[in-house]
Amino acid sequence: MKLEGKVLVAQGGGPTAVINQSLVGAVLESRKFQQVTKVYGAINGVAGIINEDFIDLTQETTHNLEQVAKTPSSALFSTRDKPDEKYCKEMFDVMRAHDIRYFFYIGGNDSADTVRIVNEYAEISGYEFRAIHIPKTIDNDLTVNDHTPGYGSAAKFVSQAFIGINLDVRALPGIYIGIVMGRHAGFLTAASSLAQKYPDDGPHLIYLPERPFSLEKFIQDVKKVYDRYGRCIVAVSEGIADETGTPIAVKLMKHIEKDAHGNVNLSGGSLGQLLADHVKEKLNIKRVRSDTFGYLQRSFIGCVSDVDQHEAREVGEKAAQFAIWHNLDGSITIHRTGYYSVDYRLTNLHEVAGKTKIMPDEFINREGNNVTDAFKFYARPLLGTDMPSADRLRAPKVPKILKKE
Amino acid sequence: MKLEGKVLVAQGGGPTAVINQSLVGAVLESRKFQQVTKVYGAINGVAGIINEDFIDLTQETTHNLEQVAKTPSSALFSTRDKPDEKYCKEMFDVMRAHDIRYFFYIGGNDSADTVRIVNEYAEISGYEFRAIHIPKTIDNDLTVNDHTPGYGSAAKFVSQAFIGINLDVRALPGIYIGIVMGRHAGFLTAASSLAQKYPDDGPHLIYLPERPFSLEKFIQDVKKVYDRYGRCIVAVSEGIADETGTPIAVKLMKHIEKDAHGNVNLSGGSLGQLLADHVKEKLNIKRVRSDTFGYLQRSFIGCVSDVDQHEAREVGEKAAQFAIWHNLDGSITIHRTGYYSVDYRLTNLHEVAGKTKIMPDEFINREGNNVTDAFKFYARPLLGTDMPSADRLRAPKVPKILKKE
Repeated sequence: MKLEGKVLVAQGGGPTAVINQSLVGAVLESRKFQQVTKVYGAINGVAGIINEDFIDLTQETTHNLEQVAKTPSSALFSTRDKPDEKYCKEMFDVMRAHDIRYFFYIGGNDSADTVRIVNEYAEISGYEFRAIHIPKTIDNDLTVNDHTPGYGSAAKFVSQAFIGINLDVRALPGIYIGIVMGRHAGFLTAASSLAQKYPDDGPHLIYLPERPFSLEKFIQDVKKVYDRYGRCIVAVSEGIADETGTPIAVKLMKHIEKDAHGNVNLSGGSLGQLLADHVKEKLNIKRVRSDTFGYLQRSFIGCVSDVDQHEAREVGEKAAQFAIWHNLDGSITIHRTGYYSVDYRLTNLHEVAGKTKIMPDEFINREGNNVTDAFKFYARPLLGTDMPSADRLRAPKVPKILKKE
Repeated sequence: MKLEGKVLVAQGGGPTAVINQSLVGAVLESRKFQQVTKVYGAINGVAGIINEDFIDLTQETTHNLEQVAKTPSSALFSTRDKPDEKYCKEMFDVMRAHDIRYFFYIGGNDSADTVRIVNEYAEISGYEFRAIHIPKTIDNDLTVNDHTPGYGSAAKFVSQAFIGINLDVRALPGIYIGIVMGRHAGFLTAASSLAQKYPDDGPHLIYLPERPFSLEKFIQDVKKVYDRYGRCIVAVSEGIADETGTPIAVKLMKHIEKDAHGNVNLSGGSLGQLLADHVKEKLNIKRVRSDTFGYLQRSFIGCVSDVDQHEAREVGEKAAQFAIWHNLDGSITIHRTGYYSVDYRLTNLHEVAGKTKIMPDEFINREGNNVTDAFKFYARPLLGTDMPSADRLRAPKVPKILKKE
């Protein structure tokens, strides 16, 4: 029984370097099926569905789709709307009016939840409808999945950034603190560890939201590394908090306020700057620098993992196949089958929707200030086959003649 | 008359993505001359010369040198020391003790000045000595030179970053402010303009240290762009200042202090954050974001201009040839001979040492909030032959059926 009708694809949440691979995979695969009358794209994710802002991707050239696939960030644009029941009902009404029978939503765990609710309306209404969630998030925090499309490329950016920082801080020594995205899951920050090649390479310390952060311990850790190497490179998740769940930035602001007898910091100094100031003050080290990687890490063009690209493409294609070929609903999930190989399965939406995965204990060291080799083994293949590498001079020292001082 | 003796190479100042190309060019070319007895490298620039911290690069494998050439940031490490006369005299004494007859210093205008002073000591002392400055700076601010090695690769990073930001802010609209390095010269910030492909692409506004910055005009400019496109992307040099020369960050801090009746901002909120807060307050726009590109832009591995690589290599080789083959002193300078071709000349150290070039007037638009096509024409070839490109969907809109609201 072939279900005839239209396909609708949408993209939600933050951009990734490979989110358009999934879009193009779903579109091109859908266009191959005779029962698919049109392939639409919704502009601005779920918001575009409510507003009937559709474009007809059946009329897009295959070549341009391939060019778009290589371009980072949602080509259909995105939204931060998190639909409630009423919103989902409206979405469903619009889709029914347009004879949309297949809905593919590329996004994170909130997007999976949207797909779940819309699908329930279709079932209640007796409307024949297939809905599939296509995974995407640089946070790598979707349950069931071994990892998620978008993570590998962002991880590659973070790792390449820290390779450069290693070289920079080795040439001009000091302390460096890099703030990486990740409010709840530390996977992206942990990817900084893949910048290590030589035994004294940084990041020497990695702080993740999965572990409570202590300012006292942090200063001790930094001092220990600095005393040993004359430099210290630190990767910090933006989401670090203390044992009570208070964000460290808030905590440091309070310290400052207290010191200044009630004066308020109005510009909301960044976590990186606050940590750098704290280190300067406590350790009396002059050269302490920080960067907040910010938006660069999630949509940087030209820094993409080929493995991530391939997988993002396939989850898009798989969505079309499961829905149109097999008449199934669900969430596409990635499963590791070898080192390194993967397979794609269809998982019940309930198992992914609205849930968050964090770093497992075996990926974090006992002290809670670094990752384990198990994490590196897990993450390395996701960065792809063309990671650049740094090399050092190894020439022998020349004996001194004047031997002053 | 062949001058027999040792070669010494050193690197100074901030790192670039191609500074080791110049090092390896100078080392490999020097090793070809029979009158060169050894090729030394000074660890930590001029500081390493004072301390006799040399390594013997004659004993480095050619293959490893080639690997190091592809690695960003000074492989010999660097220093922020700016030698005075006494310091230069000490450097000269050490070099004489080690029978160093050829000195190549890779760096900016301060490094050129060091070379100049050391060379004067050699002349006064009647010591046969050739000293050459090899240009390097991401700021692109050396006089005489059409451009400088290191600039093209940093410019490529900035341009690629803004391509991603364009896509990101188009998918999730708002205002974005990116702070780029450059205290006195705006060349690196101006390179953001090369991210523009489509007519509505950003950065829509570019503010350079060459023009006084007015907060009122800035808000007007941003509003105009935002009203037109529903988004606004801004590139700002870290060095912007008002007509009196007061840095804008300092000025904004004072605004905040005044508003808060004397409360002091202790964490020194970044320029980007301060500008973003200012826009939020004045235009009442919710989504205003900022990034400070920071250290990522000068040593990011895997984002390098091939043109920059070739030129950095050649200025290193040329230094060795001018000094050893022709017995000359000076600064290697790059001259544009076609579109796009260059030639290298030897320039008197006095013409480069301690001097700073800024953006010429014809590169900046009349309003002082963007660059001209003349700049883009100038800068584009320096980014190299493999700049990635962003593509957009062009599918037609679907007519609405429900036409709600």
